[in-house]
Amino acid sequence: MQFWFEFASTYSYPAALRVETLARQRGVPLEWKGFLLGPIFQAQGWNDSPFNLFPIQGRYMWRDLERVCADLELPFRRPSQFPRNSVLAARVACRFAGEPWQPDFVRAVFRANFAEDRDIAQPVVLEHCLKALGLPGTELLDQARSPDCKTLLRARTEQAVALGIFGAPTFIVDEELFWGNDRLEAALAWATRRAKPGC
Amino acid sequence: MQFWFEFASTYSYPAALRVETLARQRGVPLEWKGFLLGPIFQAQGWNDSPFNLFPIQGRYMWRDLERVCADLELPFRRPSQFPRNSVLAARVACRFAGEPWQPDFVRAVFRANFAEDRDIAQPVVLEHCLKALGLPGTELLDQARSPDCKTLLRARTEQAVALGIFGAPTFIVDEELFWGNDRLEAALAWATRRAKPGC
Repeated sequence: MQFWFEFASTYSYPAALRVETLARQRGVPLEWKGFLLGPIFQAQGWNDSPFNLFPIQGRYMWRDLERVCADLELPFRRPSQFPRNSVLAARVACRFAGEPWQPDFVRAVFRANFAEDRDIAQPVVLEHCLKALGLPGTELLDQARSPDCKTLLRARTEQAVALGIFGAPTFIVDEELFWGNDRLEAALAWATRRAKPGC
Repeated sequence: MQFWFEFASTYSYPAALRVETLARQRGVPLEWKGFLLGPIFQAQGWNDSPFNLFPIQGRYMWRDLERVCADLELPFRRPSQFPRNSVLAARVACRFAGEPWQPDFVRAVFRANFAEDRDIAQPVVLEHCLKALGLPGTELLDQARSPDCKTLLRARTEQAVALGIFGAPTFIVDEELFWGNDRLEAALAWATRRAKPGC
């Protein structure tokens, strides 16, 4: 199963914190796919998060997210800025996608944004997330700033569009697309259904 | 718990077919609240369903709805027209809200739209739904066409806006708003949590 996430996306937060444990329990292999929603929203004529453009929906979303996190026993603090610029974080996620520390890094960045109200646009915040994992933060961030990384992330976001992705989180199992934290269980059920012989 | 539904709304269909059984199982009293989404969308500058205005989301929604209905073992056929004009059906629902046959009528109209691909804008289709319940369809439809009924439905839709409703289905428990068929269980859990003494 592919897990497409965006560090600025609110419902990507509970999904990112749950996905690995649930996938492992069900024996579903997991691929982490960081991408950017901004260019996808812009292509729809939105220059901001729809939760800001449509404030009634936005107000509901914050309350709903608070309830969802409480149900899942995940810490939550509404970020004082929304959405936060997630470009550098997404470049790190994209550049080091195969590394064993990637899931821990992703979760740390999501927690920084949605549980600790820290500005993930600031390199020092990402550096801290990396260093807390015992990694050479400064060096890895430098690598993530390379033009190659920029190209890689752009290609990743174009791939998202080609796959029909329009929001985050999105789970993909074969050709099947599941959108939203509340579709994680359905995506995993689909993945295990497909895996059974004779189905 | 209040169940706010719109006969043209796709995800209102599985919600309408499930809500009574689930509420009864959990001992949660249920109020059926038919309303119109059209005026609410128009106030946001949308002159059509967002699923038509944003076709990528629309394509996803139809596939998702198909899967949701399959999981719930509900019959589903994609309507050949979307959204269908639901004004007369909503007037019937609004006018006869307290009648014991109302839930059966609501389910019959939803099935007509989303399982049988029948045009619920046509009085003959609604008349058929009423007559199949042993009711005087022609007479009830005449009553639903009265100016009073028009006023009643308009007031109901204004009430929805005042409550912060922006989509359907919406469940309301006290001041708490839950949006979407996939939030039905959470709304019921909230209702029973509140009902427990000492909580």
